[in-house]
Amino acid sequence: MAGTDRTQASMTGGPRVVLVEPQLGENIGAVARAMLNCGLDRLSIVNPREEWPNPRAVTMASGATKVLDDAQLYDTVEDAVAGMTTVYATTARPREMTVRVVTPRQAGAEIRTAEARGERVGILFGPERSGLTNEHVVLADTVITVPLNPAYSSLNLAQAVLVVAYEWFTAEDVTDPDVISTPGTRLAEKEEMHDLFERLERELDAGGFFRAPDLRETVVRNLRAMLQRTRMTEQEVRTFHGIVSALTRSWQHTQNAKRRRGEWPEPDED
Amino acid sequence: MAGTDRTQASMTGGPRVVLVEPQLGENIGAVARAMLNCGLDRLSIVNPREEWPNPRAVTMASGATKVLDDAQLYDTVEDAVAGMTTVYATTARPREMTVRVVTPRQAGAEIRTAEARGERVGILFGPERSGLTNEHVVLADTVITVPLNPAYSSLNLAQAVLVVAYEWFTAEDVTDPDVISTPGTRLAEKEEMHDLFERLERELDAGGFFRAPDLRETVVRNLRAMLQRTRMTEQEVRTFHGIVSALTRSWQHTQNAKRRRGEWPEPDED
Repeated sequence: MAGTDRTQASMTGGPRVVLVEPQLGENIGAVARAMLNCGLDRLSIVNPREEWPNPRAVTMASGATKVLDDAQLYDTVEDAVAGMTTVYATTARPREMTVRVVTPRQAGAEIRTAEARGERVGILFGPERSGLTNEHVVLADTVITVPLNPAYSSLNLAQAVLVVAYEWFTAEDVTDPDVISTPGTRLAEKEEMHDLFERLERELDAGGFFRAPDLRETVVRNLRAMLQRTRMTEQEVRTFHGIVSALTRSWQHTQNAKRRRGEWPEPDED
Repeated sequence: MAGTDRTQASMTGGPRVVLVEPQLGENIGAVARAMLNCGLDRLSIVNPREEWPNPRAVTMASGATKVLDDAQLYDTVEDAVAGMTTVYATTARPREMTVRVVTPRQAGAEIRTAEARGERVGILFGPERSGLTNEHVVLADTVITVPLNPAYSSLNLAQAVLVVAYEWFTAEDVTDPDVISTPGTRLAEKEEMHDLFERLERELDAGGFFRAPDLRETVVRNLRAMLQRTRMTEQEVRTFHGIVSALTRSWQHTQNAKRRRGEWPEPDED
């Protein structure tokens, strides 16, 4: 699949995803895929409605079948969380009970810390249509509710797993949030930019670009500001030099052509 | 659907999602649902492979059909972005070109700012299997790449839209990341907790709980620390008083029963 680098070893560990009475095999497969996208590969399934293993789950998992192969099957949620020390329950709607409620981002950060302490963490996700019952929610320490459009806040099962798993992943992700990617080259040094600017301005002087000499300084400043915004690479600086050369040559070219045709050439400079 | 409050007006606005040559109607429907989950409702579709409108899209949109009804259809990406001032392209894999790359979180924050300035923002998503071509990517100002498990980084179309839309939504979401939800009650005041502690400790003294008087202070401190961690509501404090009463009564009860049976009662206190 686009973007997948099979040479990279898959990550392991992270919290265990516990699907409580999932209705459709397709959704279990989609969950496995969303989990592996975010480096999670430990799945438990409590009392699925359809038979297990489920071929439709394998189809939807598209490549994340190992997560399905290693999935643990349980009859009750109590059994599924028995060995855990920290359990979260995901709910879309507020419950009529006094309970700690956190966002997925908060949960992602504190799960990372808990795991570093050696805690065994699980996250409960309820059936597609109804979600977790209050009886399931009280088996957890904390509720996770995804902040969403209040007029339309119901995520499908795999989408809910993705958001929670994504926040767990990004809680320790070190990706530069804003970078200029320069494959096979590097950003230009300022001196390279200044040489380009001065060369360009010389040619523009020769071409009579600056009609109003008293405005030259301002026009040059704005021109440099515009070209600076491109954050050129050293390669692009060389390309831009080539463009300037080509444009000046093309002017000479037309001049010479006119001479050959015996026309009056335009004055080379004034 | 669980969690959806139909009385809430749907949010509108936000960046326009542009699906480039989507292959399956189902996926377009799933995209509409993910968009509306995050308060986005402006969708453009460029040259879909299947016919449009598409009944399978409506099925998958489960409730988000208005997003599909209002979707704009285009023949080319150039036409779709023509009126926009700021365009992002989502790619899973790095491209062989010098381009600015940001995370969805960074994009969500800067799109909010751009919209506040009145910019018209669009986000391109490529076909399911192949993703955007480089020809499409160069139509954008900035690339968005979702940080994911490098060994398995390919999200399905609706999942990619969800992550980017979710980051746009949360960029201005004011949900308390960590709160104790206390429906119909409030957290107990410290005085209510202290009264409960002192009452409990009196009964424990009477019941001979503190066998080693020199350890009493420590045991009491740890007991109070444990009960404090529950962050009781005032209602739960009253419940806990009732529990203490019931347990002491049950002791009296068994004593009296023994007396009635002519057995020696245990000493009431020592």
